[in-house]
Amino acid sequence: MFKIDNIEIGGDRVIIIAGPCALENEEQALRITRIVKGVGAQTFRAQIFKPRTDPDSFQGLGLAGLPILALLKRETGLLLITEVLDPRDIEKVCDYCDILQIGSRSMQNFPLLIEAGKTGKPVMLKRGMGATIQDYLSAAKYITNQGNQRLILCERGIVTFEGYTRNTLDINGLMALKDISGFPVFIDPSHGTGRREMVVRAALAGIAAGADGVMVEVHYDPDSSLVDAKQTISSEQFSELMEKGRSVAEAIGRSM
Amino acid sequence: MFKIDNIEIGGDRVIIIAGPCALENEEQALRITRIVKGVGAQTFRAQIFKPRTDPDSFQGLGLAGLPILALLKRETGLLLITEVLDPRDIEKVCDYCDILQIGSRSMQNFPLLIEAGKTGKPVMLKRGMGATIQDYLSAAKYITNQGNQRLILCERGIVTFEGYTRNTLDINGLMALKDISGFPVFIDPSHGTGRREMVVRAALAGIAAGADGVMVEVHYDPDSSLVDAKQTISSEQFSELMEKGRSVAEAIGRSM
Amino acid sequence: MFKIDNIEIGGDRVIIIAGPCALENEEQALRITRIVKGVGAQTFRAQIFKPRTDPDSFQGLGLAGLPILALLKRETGLLLITEVLDPRDIEKVCDYCDILQIGSRSMQNFPLLIEAGKTGKPVMLKRGMGATIQDYLSAAKYITNQGNQRLILCERGIVTFEGYTRNTLDINGLMALKDISGFPVFIDPSHGTGRREMVVRAALAGIAAGADGVMVEVHYDPDSSLVDAKQTISSEQFSELMEKGRSVAEAIGRSM
Amino acid sequence: MFKIDNIEIGGDRVIIIAGPCALENEEQALRITRIVKGVGAQTFRAQIFKPRTDPDSFQGLGLAGLPILALLKRETGLLLITEVLDPRDIEKVCDYCDILQIGSRSMQNFPLLIEAGKTGKPVMLKRGMGATIQDYLSAAKYITNQGNQRLILCERGIVTFEGYTRNTLDINGLMALKDISGFPVFIDPSHGTGRREMVVRAALAGIAAGADGVMVEVHYDPDSSLVDAKQTISSEQFSELMEKGRSVAEAIGRSM
Repeated sequence: MFKIDNIEIGGDRVIIIAGPCALENEEQALRITRIVKGVGAQTFRAQIFKPRTDPDSFQGLGLAGLPILALLKRETGLLLITEVLDPRDIEKVCDYCDILQIGSRSMQNFPLLIEAGKTGKPVMLKRGMGATIQDYLSAAKYITNQGNQRLILCERGIVTFEGYTRNTLDINGLMALKDISGFPVFIDPSHGTGRREMVVRAALAGIAAGADGVMVEVHYDPDSSLVDAKQTISSEQFSELMEKGRSVAEAIGRSM
Repeated sequence: MFKIDNIEIGGDRVIIIAGPCALENEEQALRITRIVKGVGAQTFRAQIFKPRTDPDSFQGLGLAGLPILALLKRETGLLLITEVLDPRDIEKVCDYCDILQIGSRSMQNFPLLIEAGKTGKPVMLKRGMGATIQDYLSAAKYITNQGNQRLILCERGIVTFEGYTRNTLDINGLMALKDISGFPVFIDPSHGTGRREMVVRAALAGIAAGADGVMVEVHYDPDSSLVDAKQTISSEQFSELMEKGRSVAEAIGRSM
Repeated sequence: MFKIDNIEIGGDRVIIIAGPCALENEEQALRITRIVKGVGAQTFRAQIFKPRTDPDSFQGLGLAGLPILALLKRETGLLLITEVLDPRDIEKVCDYCDILQIGSRSMQNFPLLIEAGKTGKPVMLKRGMGATIQDYLSAAKYITNQGNQRLILCERGIVTFEGYTRNTLDINGLMALKDISGFPVFIDPSHGTGRREMVVRAALAGIAAGADGVMVEVHYDPDSSLVDAKQTISSEQFSELMEKGRSVAEAIGRSM
Repeated sequence: MFKIDNIEIGGDRVIIIAGPCALENEEQALRITRIVKGVGAQTFRAQIFKPRTDPDSFQGLGLAGLPILALLKRETGLLLITEVLDPRDIEKVCDYCDILQIGSRSMQNFPLLIEAGKTGKPVMLKRGMGATIQDYLSAAKYITNQGNQRLILCERGIVTFEGYTRNTLDINGLMALKDISGFPVFIDPSHGTGRREMVVRAALAGIAAGADGVMVEVHYDPDSSLVDAKQTISSEQFSELMEKGRSVAEAIGRSM
């Protein structure tokens, strides 16, 4: 357990990180932060770099998005989390966010992990989609070996033979990480399922299994998202997630 | 949704099936049914045939266990579910149980599925550990094509690259089956994790994700189980499962 | 190594088993046996029971196909291999074939394995698509425990996250089986790839890795096959397989 | 097909890349290059950066190894391939090698891919162990979009449920890449199996399936390797690989 500002990560309260898959512009960002804040989430996903499988897809705003992060922080006071891809960008990005995210595709990008560790900022390291629990915990050591213990782990689905869902959300993996890592463990039901109609239920499953937080993609008009539209939930679904999530959290003796 | 006696399967109430991995003798069976009934479960796992990976392992009591099934029914009135492996045994077994179980290893044993379908008895068909959702639903048609619609599906973990747990419980698969099959869908957190310390949490995750029932291995002295000791929970853990399970079920508008 | 008639299985010579995925009628069967015999294969796939994922697909001729097996044996003298699905059919089928095949979906159908073992006939047990090497070897013991040591193993592809091919041919598994089982190990490049254009190359890879035999689906008009058309090769491709296969076998000190 | 110096990559001749998993010191490097050159391989693996799963393992010599690369080039004239992990190192490394390697863990390190593409140097991009063929080809576009078409692909094993081998060598994937990418495709039987006793056979299988090259870990005293000892072959095994490999290549109409 550790604190960012006054917010406990890995404490009794289940933490919600929400926002669009990628920041697209000022207006989209502000509209979504208001939804996120309105239902009581603590942290906003503010992705300016999007590692896309295909180089011809939208790659995010890049460093040009930093002023939007500054604006969001000023306007909302939410904690901001943003992904970094390149060790050369970390220093610039650090000033504008509260948590550095290292994504699944970068889980074994060791130079990046080392740089992130050195900043002393809280880091969320997402599990690689082909990484065992053991590989994952070994990768985490690249960060903590720099003296940075403010680490958040996040299960977000693994590759399996099943093609109905984009990935297979590994609830067992979530529990294993809780049992052996000692770090707060979050769940990402958006990437973990890849299907909008499953996101709320997957989030509840994660909370029931002991997740310390949920990271979810939300948009006021999900179909218009430039990235990951199929797994982005609406503000109505997000309200449902918050309401049922609180009840499930209470059912197991936590809050949300 | 359908009924067995007065019990709705696939209705609002989440159903609990519990019992030892395998029946070992009369005394073990009776002691465990009392635990199971005591906490309010509706159905008892009464396995007399155990399909073991290794032929030199304990294979269950076989047909010699049928009198124990008769005794259990008489003494407890619980619904009984028992696995069949061989189409030649189905007729004999049918008289002693309320639900026929077809296990993961038999999911594509088509002659067995056809015979089970013909009996008209309710059938639980467990998902094969290497079977896609599509393979699974196709296999189910071998049963329903016989005119038997009283079918229960059960997610129990799939094979993946992750070796920390025996199988990877596929919560996404559970939701997919709920969304597209039209049949009640149960979850087996015992085989789905293979680890005793995870069983309760995995059951809660399944309930939160919408499972219509939970099938779980329970023993008054788990370590002494002849089969699957590592994934069998104690009566204390089973009580915890029931208590928290009820709260989680209520959190999503169901009962248990 | 053991012999069937005068043919060594698991000796220096790589054995070829070829034929249609399923027998469809007398004429188809005879035409394909002539192709198979013409290029020098020793064994004919003569499947009358086809375990199909979907119950509404063609399921084979069933016992009605037995007279065709008798005809083929009389006309060609080739060894015949045929799959059995149901322990109740084994006795009838035994009189008409030289090798009993137990398919992937039946790999853990233990009553079937035991009955097959009891016949004393040579048995080919194919690897289940979700079975580890260890599971596979354990299943094989159900046969050999009956005193039947004339067992052939066959790698035929496993389930993985890769969807470009129907299955992932596990060449490592083939080698593992050779190294630890002591039984002849064949390869099935038809199911192992599911793609006609890959079958010859996959067969050559298997031979190079040490396969003792190759089981392949051949048809004079592959696109007209009722079953598995996409993975069935033409007679021209089969000739290419035989010719290059001989060269590859010789390259590693064997014959074919 | 393209040329590096006078050596055709993706032509008739199967190319051999061999060397230790990691350069350890001058003497080790020189001894192994002599073995490699002695049996007729064209390219030497000269790894100075080793991305290790565990940060506490030997990580390679780093930039301190560059003078050894210069020495090897001067003494042997072999082509040198070396892995880069960090976009900040690419410029320095480029002067000392003929081919830049991007390893499996970096397959989706897009900033690194872009930098490698910009250098104009030939690049070998290894397949990620959890990457589909489609993910892999999309990643390759990050390099070729920079105008760099001198790309080599390399299949090196994927994650599956089978634990007997370190990875599952995906021969189907090799063929798929040959059929649809248009780039030379190599195979890495060392990582693809993780077991020394399988490396030669896996290499032969790859050649038989159409690999344009083989990348293999060799050491005069394999057990003393600081990295990947279990999958490193001896000079005797390497001679066997070359000899049988030539025969297999000729069996399918190529040379080696």
